[in-house]
Amino acid sequence: MSPSAFSLGLFTDFYELTMAQAYWQDGHNGPATFSLFFRDLPHDRGYLVFAGLYDVLDYLQELRFTAPDIDYLRSLHRFDVGFLDYLQNLRFTGSVRAMREGTIVFANEPVIEIAAPLIEAQLIETMLVNEVNLQTILATKASRVVYAARGRQVIDFAARRAHGIDAANKFSRASYLAGFDGTSNTLASALYGIPVSGTMAHSLIMSYDSEINSFRVYARSFPDSSTLLVDTYDTLSGTHKSAVVAEELKKHGHRLQAIRLDSGNLLELSRKARAILDGAALKDVKIFASGGLDEFQVHDLVYAGAPIDGFGVGTKVGVSADAPWTDSVYKLVDYDGRTVLKLSNMKETLPGPKQVFRQRNSDGSYAYDIITQANRLVDKAEPLLHEVMANGKRLLPDEPLNVLRPRFAQEFAYLPAGGKALHSPTMYEVRTSVELERLREQVVQETKKREVSR
Amino acid sequence: MSPSAFSLGLFTDFYELTMAQAYWQDGHNGPATFSLFFRDLPHDRGYLVFAGLYDVLDYLQELRFTAPDIDYLRSLHRFDVGFLDYLQNLRFTGSVRAMREGTIVFANEPVIEIAAPLIEAQLIETMLVNEVNLQTILATKASRVVYAARGRQVIDFAARRAHGIDAANKFSRASYLAGFDGTSNTLASALYGIPVSGTMAHSLIMSYDSEINSFRVYARSFPDSSTLLVDTYDTLSGTHKSAVVAEELKKHGHRLQAIRLDSGNLLELSRKARAILDGAALKDVKIFASGGLDEFQVHDLVYAGAPIDGFGVGTKVGVSADAPWTDSVYKLVDYDGRTVLKLSNMKETLPGPKQVFRQRNSDGSYAYDIITQANRLVDKAEPLLHEVMANGKRLLPDEPLNVLRPRFAQEFAYLPAGGKALHSPTMYEVRTSVELERLREQVVQETKKREVSR
Repeated sequence: MSPSAFSLGLFTDFYELTMAQAYWQDGHNGPATFSLFFRDLPHDRGYLVFAGLYDVLDYLQELRFTAPDIDYLRSLHRFDVGFLDYLQNLRFTGSVRAMREGTIVFANEPVIEIAAPLIEAQLIETMLVNEVNLQTILATKASRVVYAARGRQVIDFAARRAHGIDAANKFSRASYLAGFDGTSNTLASALYGIPVSGTMAHSLIMSYDSEINSFRVYARSFPDSSTLLVDTYDTLSGTHKSAVVAEELKKHGHRLQAIRLDSGNLLELSRKARAILDGAALKDVKIFASGGLDEFQVHDLVYAGAPIDGFGVGTKVGVSADAPWTDSVYKLVDYDGRTVLKLSNMKETLPGPKQVFRQRNSDGSYAYDIITQANRLVDKAEPLLHEVMANGKRLLPDEPLNVLRPRFAQEFAYLPAGGKALHSPTMYEVRTSVELERLREQVVQETKKREVSR
Repeated sequence: MSPSAFSLGLFTDFYELTMAQAYWQDGHNGPATFSLFFRDLPHDRGYLVFAGLYDVLDYLQELRFTAPDIDYLRSLHRFDVGFLDYLQNLRFTGSVRAMREGTIVFANEPVIEIAAPLIEAQLIETMLVNEVNLQTILATKASRVVYAARGRQVIDFAARRAHGIDAANKFSRASYLAGFDGTSNTLASALYGIPVSGTMAHSLIMSYDSEINSFRVYARSFPDSSTLLVDTYDTLSGTHKSAVVAEELKKHGHRLQAIRLDSGNLLELSRKARAILDGAALKDVKIFASGGLDEFQVHDLVYAGAPIDGFGVGTKVGVSADAPWTDSVYKLVDYDGRTVLKLSNMKETLPGPKQVFRQRNSDGSYAYDIITQANRLVDKAEPLLHEVMANGKRLLPDEPLNVLRPRFAQEFAYLPAGGKALHSPTMYEVRTSVELERLREQVVQETKKREVSR
């Protein structure tokens, strides 16, 4: 799909390349550690669902600059010939410690730490932040819809208004990981093995000279898996017609699966449609709803007891409309054995390689997290960062979605309820170890003394 | 990049395929016309900048289902073998009327009309809406930043937090079309020929044992094109050090290009930094600002007279954070000579193939638009939809960005100022022709009579 002669090596902010040349010319390529973390949680988010690791590992393993990449860079007349030769032979040789995909994370907790020669670790920033930011925000948004739906079916309808093909496919995967039941995106279903679903749009109904005929034509093609869209002209008239077609299917030993409501007051219409179907002895025909829904509307419908069996959610969820970005950053924390940090206004970071421990209550529920220096132990607590790549090679195969999905569901159950609230969630406790706090303070003081002239 | 055995033919909502099978089995594949338009303008938008056409035309011209696509569909056990054979041979054979890329558009105006056999026109919906929705919203958001910057330089920094690689590249292109001066996204610069820029991140400074040494190392590599990032530890201390390095460069016949502020109160810091530089006889060293900026903050800084020469804008602009989606829809308006429309609650559409005319004042500025039936003429007004593809073949080569960009700038100058306001813009007048209004009313009445039982 969309192949070009260029590689993803070029998907990098230009400054990564100019810095790399400056490092290379200066012989400055010692071991560096970078932490990828979220500086803050977005608005109305009490947690994030970490995702994107496997795409990051694929990228690192495949990273190389192709001849067309190098030719393009040469054409800019900004780079040294020797540096471009170096770049053409560059591979990622570092190691990666990371949380598992689907881990529930909080502000300031590193989700990935990269240890590699400085130039390699620098060049990968743009791609790493992009993958993790996007997939994490999408998995998080999707988990909120699943929570709001309280067991009702949820299907991804986001393909047409996600931000591009890449984002649409990643939303399908991230939302399935977070508990969705399927997707309408056929390509994503093929790529990731996600159940695919979908039946008809308004155009089918409008292309026939009568609504009921269009229903009959469709039901002939899919006599046991039809969901009839009933709101093209008038939802309740459409529901009556769907009941007629359901009767006809019954007579031939088939069953209408569901009707779909796509506009109007869904609470009121679902009640009336349910009454029509029940009145026609069609209690087994389900009601599916869609049309600009997000977790807030799904919550309201479920809370009000709307007789809706499943939801299709698209646009607002697929772009995480209320929080379309995270404050994800990738920061140098150690260079050549020297612990470093940034002091910029309000943006101080935690120095050095780190580990995150999760302390649980006896029932498995989360008590609090502790961020420590790497290679420390916290009694009875579970370390969340694991080595997943060494010397540029993956250490383990990717876990499949059918492992990630139930594990996420289990872990989400362990997150305290206050953190799951759709509005103004409770902030989960994340501690910093005394030792790390002391290190931070020490590096801050040393750095200020050295660099700040006021 | 990311090649897979599957084609973009599969990037379609599953219902497009099930409907296609129902049409095929029913022999229902007459000529259809679909209109792609924006039902409403998003929040705080007085206009949209149409973009995405060339990607749509590429897709239509290349559309075909590959053997792996067909194998995947077969594996679902939902499709007829004859239908899958038909699909394997399907090509897009229709015609396309469209506005030019970069055209300023308003609610309900068709930007693309597709005329093709029903199955072909149906299968392409997901991809068309995705391309046009995304690129239009990104070009529109970018145009607001250019407007707010009032001639100051604006650079795309969105690559790391755009929604995936596809969106990042499309933002680079759309923002350049809308007037940005360049991008930090190296891949997008290579793909689209956009000027690329960028110099250093905080990690460069932190990787050295002193900030001033890091500046010197970088300046040695790029003695005439350095922008020194001064806020890693303390913005004004960093500015003083940059002045020292600028002096050193001067002595060797070089020039420091700029400094970059990336945090803190940018108005206050830019004034103090300007004073430091001017005091050191460095009036030609420019000040560049970045750090979570969008059109609102750029406007405030420019309005307050901040001595900032250029802005780097990323996250909030690259995801169009205040309006991350449009109400873009693709609706059947005519099937086999029969004019159709949808009556769903609040979502009535304009029936039949259409044309949009722009009426200008004598100075070229926009007076109002009129939506008419297709093949009509409006005296002295300019039709906005042009035939760009016939029988599945492009009629004209794509216009290059260096044609689209100045034309957009010219047209934007003709849009009444009230429509450009960043908050609560004035709504530009879009009329519907009397004839079209009468047709709509007639089709509404006929459809209600036929389909609505209350």
